[in-house]
Amino acid sequence: MKLYDYDIAPNPRRARMFLAEKGIDNVDIVQVDLGNKEQLSDNFRAINPSCIVPALALDDGTLITESVAICRYFEELQPSPPLMGRDAKEKALVEMWQRRVELQGMLPAGDTFRNSGKRWTDRALAGPVNYAQIPELVNRGRARVEYFLGVLNEQLGVSEFVATETFTIADITAFILIEFAGWSKIEIPEEYGALQRWFQSTKARPSVKV
Amino acid sequence: MKLYDYDIAPNPRRARMFLAEKGIDNVDIVQVDLGNKEQLSDNFRAINPSCIVPALALDDGTLITESVAICRYFEELQPSPPLMGRDAKEKALVEMWQRRVELQGMLPAGDTFRNSGKRWTDRALAGPVNYAQIPELVNRGRARVEYFLGVLNEQLGVSEFVATETFTIADITAFILIEFAGWSKIEIPEEYGALQRWFQSTKARPSVKV
Repeated sequence: MKLYDYDIAPNPRRARMFLAEKGIDNVDIVQVDLGNKEQLSDNFRAINPSCIVPALALDDGTLITESVAICRYFEELQPSPPLMGRDAKEKALVEMWQRRVELQGMLPAGDTFRNSGKRWTDRALAGPVNYAQIPELVNRGRARVEYFLGVLNEQLGVSEFVATETFTIADITAFILIEFAGWSKIEIPEEYGALQRWFQSTKARPSVKV
Repeated sequence: MKLYDYDIAPNPRRARMFLAEKGIDNVDIVQVDLGNKEQLSDNFRAINPSCIVPALALDDGTLITESVAICRYFEELQPSPPLMGRDAKEKALVEMWQRRVELQGMLPAGDTFRNSGKRWTDRALAGPVNYAQIPELVNRGRARVEYFLGVLNEQLGVSEFVATETFTIADITAFILIEFAGWSKIEIPEEYGALQRWFQSTKARPSVKV
């Protein structure tokens, strides 16, 4: 098994945190240098035509892309500790929050990050196709992330963790969102005490060091 | 159990197709009239502050939003027939394709649909907050969907169904994508024989009649 990875990118980091929380350390990690656009090289395109990381190559040749799909694979392979819910209701709540954080947090944070700056000219979206930047997405993304931080703060005011009463993949994605939003100088407002508390306690987990 | 629904919207239809494939018919369906913005009413906001459908209210008061989370709940409650994969590898492949169809298909199709036309002025995104339309997203959305139909056609040239060798939620989402893209006059190109074949055979399933 090989995990194609890039150390500092948010999505591969989600997968690595998930593995660390599971205590899984027998996966070969292969760095793909996104900084030098190695994901767009002929060599990597032949491995993963979607030109994204993380990507997990199984020993039978199957390639699994999408961080959450990779996490799902390991959750099924090694259910303990459960990071995607323990019963029908928990699994649904984890999926709901995991998706909220992605769709209402990570995607808009990505809009803000990739539509500003010359680095991403014509690379406004990850993947094999070039798309021009759309400057209006910068502020809209910021507004959406700021709104969603309020939603998260409210939820963490009534729940110790994002989705259920235990730490799950929804906490991992939310933690990565906060880090990633910080790249665009979107910070947790001081008055969001519940979100601040949760962020600090998540930051103290060994899995964030991966 | 109550499922808040709106007959003609794509996402509620995904959930209903999923239930039909499972043969589950004991869920109370409550129509929320999106045509008259009932999802933004005080009454519905009190039920679901996210102002979206579908939403599933469990008998204990828990509210589950996000179509895929609702599907996950029923998959766990009634595993047969399996629509989200049968083992670790299948579950990962279903999740991967389900996400590809959403992120590379449904979201761009939504960009094209909601950023054109006066109906959606200031409602470019579903949810409780108004966002102005961004006209540049219309053509970008169209280009992305057209590219992704090629990806789907290629996959369906080597696989009878989208994700695995049986019908899964990835096929449901892909079918809804094709219908939804059609609202913006994005059609399957005639030369995409594999995608055409799969679309016609999916269209013949009883579950599409919901």
